[in-house]
Amino acid sequence: MKHTISILLQNEAGALLRVAGLFSSRGYNIDSLHVAPTQDTSVSRLTVVTRGSDEVIQQICNQLLKLVNVIDLMDMTDDMHFQRELMLVKIHLNKGVQNSIQQYAGELNANILDQERDSFVMEITASYRHMGTILERLRTFGEILTVVRSGTLAMRHGVGNFDH
Amino acid sequence: MKHTISILLQNEAGALLRVAGLFSSRGYNIDSLHVAPTQDTSVSRLTVVTRGSDEVIQQICNQLLKLVNVIDLMDMTDDMHFQRELMLVKIHLNKGVQNSIQQYAGELNANILDQERDSFVMEITASYRHMGTILERLRTFGEILTVVRSGTLAMRHGVGNFDH
Repeated sequence: MKHTISILLQNEAGALLRVAGLFSSRGYNIDSLHVAPTQDTSVSRLTVVTRGSDEVIQQICNQLLKLVNVIDLMDMTDDMHFQRELMLVKIHLNKGVQNSIQQYAGELNANILDQERDSFVMEITASYRHMGTILERLRTFGEILTVVRSGTLAMRHGVGNFDH
Repeated sequence: MKHTISILLQNEAGALLRVAGLFSSRGYNIDSLHVAPTQDTSVSRLTVVTRGSDEVIQQICNQLLKLVNVIDLMDMTDDMHFQRELMLVKIHLNKGVQNSIQQYAGELNANILDQERDSFVMEITASYRHMGTILERLRTFGEILTVVRSGTLAMRHGVGNFDH
């Protein structure tokens, strides 16, 4: 099962390397990963989507917590969390689909970044669960040239002890 | 100066580790980084925002290209590229600002994910250059509890040789 783990890291050289090294040396899968600053410039947030049984995920979390620079972490897999993703897509449109893709962009509340003769670029924000379905639908409008995905961003509902 | 480098990677164990290791061992800064699949499941795209003189950036690119699993890369810093970022923000609102923050969310074309008594969660997509200004403005509505940022997603304008 897919799990989304959110990790607060001291923003120091080698912090990302240690996390990536743990996943690599133990053979844990990384579906997506992103790391960026929080509002505190000394702390970054790293979110990693991985797969495994509950037991393996528990192992990963325990090992992560032992790493230098890991302040705290939370498994954000259940419905108590927002899980969102940003995707940029560039499509070479088939003829005559301009209106229908604009309508679909409207349904998705997507932002059209560019419309040229030979390319159409849109930006979509959605639950990561829906991205596959959205890509399938977009393929009906033309050839997908480029996909850039952020990976999952996760945030806990309500006010809790993992805010930063 | 900040540079956004987009890297196509073979999706193999240790690929991320080698990239992170290069930045760490040479002391190159990482402002943000994300890695996620492209539409080809054997290829991932890694985007890293780093800082340095043109000479240093050229060094980084040359060294990255020598790494196992790096297929290709492109410096996506100039105006020939879309540079977008997703940010989730949770705010403890001051009294009486509900209407004004909803109006601001409308101006940003932001999506309100949650409104509870003690927290307000919105999702904002914008050029990464504007995120600092947006955060400053959001602080006028209350205390910012959590910020989750994707880091920069970059895509080349038009149709080129770096589509994937």
